[in-house]
Amino acid sequence: MELSVRSAAREEFVDVTERVGEVVRELGVREGFVLVYVPHTTAGVTINEGADPDVRRDMLAALARIVHDDPSFLHAEGNSPAHVKTSLMGSSVIVPVGGGRLRLGRWQSVYLCEFDGPRTRSMWVSAGGSPSRAK
Amino acid sequence: MELSVRSAAREEFVDVTERVGEVVRELGVREGFVLVYVPHTTAGVTINEGADPDVRRDMLAALARIVHDDPSFLHAEGNSPAHVKTSLMGSSVIVPVGGGRLRLGRWQSVYLCEFDGPRTRSMWVSAGGSPSRAK
Amino acid sequence: MELSVRSAAREEFVDVTERVGEVVRELGVREGFVLVYVPHTTAGVTINEGADPDVRRDMLAALARIVHDDPSFLHAEGNSPAHVKTSLMGSSVIVPVGGGRLRLGRWQSVYLCEFDGPRTRSMWVSAGGSPSRAK
Repeated sequence: MELSVRSAAREEFVDVTERVGEVVRELGVREGFVLVYVPHTTAGVTINEGADPDVRRDMLAALARIVHDDPSFLHAEGNSPAHVKTSLMGSSVIVPVGGGRLRLGRWQSVYLCEFDGPRTRSMWVSAGGSPSRAK
Repeated sequence: MELSVRSAAREEFVDVTERVGEVVRELGVREGFVLVYVPHTTAGVTINEGADPDVRRDMLAALARIVHDDPSFLHAEGNSPAHVKTSLMGSSVIVPVGGGRLRLGRWQSVYLCEFDGPRTRSMWVSAGGSPSRAK
Repeated sequence: MELSVRSAAREEFVDVTERVGEVVRELGVREGFVLVYVPHTTAGVTINEGADPDVRRDMLAALARIVHDDPSFLHAEGNSPAHVKTSLMGSSVIVPVGGGRLRLGRWQSVYLCEFDGPRTRSMWVSAGGSPSRAK
């Protein structure tokens, strides 16, 4: 099932936990897990703290220090740092499902990691273990 | 199935390979894979060399140089680097299973990556492809 | 199913998308996903842009700046940066499958990430959700 996610800035961690949870209910997954897959190359997905919004801001700030723009980059679109950050975060996460609900840890949220926005992005959510229901 | 893992330092890579292998036997997984999921936001999981303990020390040292503490971090708990490192390593790994055993590469071990210890951490291990046996 | 991948340099992103797609056809996976697993500790796997070869060169250059060799590394083989980069990229990716084909995003390719080559590497590709067909 495809989710459409709108980012509002060049770089942003968008909390998609509730929307992924809705897909779990719509797909009727009871036990197992869901795969959350981002089909882009300048946006990824990660799991991290959802309670304090400062954490996602600190993560973006840290990533900006880890991967800074560099005159030696060859890719002409100027978004090479966005590609690197995407692979550092990854293109998919798996979340366990139990009793028909996401089984995240207490402080965990699922984030779309936008590194080259603002844009409308896609996320593909599919059920592991029940191929007939997969996207 | 839930594993409880005790870390002994602020930062530590704890080798959990044997314990994950025991769960595979207990779950009766023969073929497929297991998902090893860490429900925390300042501890992750990765696969890397298990033979030489220097490798995990070098990895912690390298991560400390990649993500250092910074006065500009907003999150008041002072563990923002731990959150960043967790997303760099990731919250889950998947390990193939064959013949009822973990099928890791020759030099591979599974590590709980503690970045804000010492603490008792949880790991959730579940069988892919057989929802009835999943955690 | 095991793929053998030859890298030609110390560090290289080898595009394995077509070969993974062939395995999907050989395994007869129709819907679900495939797990692409690298059983090494100085080579990983990631998904990123495949259209412009400059992107993979920029990614290697960025990773070289993120993880540089350091006299304090203890591991005597001199490949500690390769181990760190492997965990930053990860040891597996999951790719959705639909209609018997890989369902990557438009610009996405699957890369073996060689960090200690040139060598012949293995990749294990298995079908999620259908244990009888898994490697």
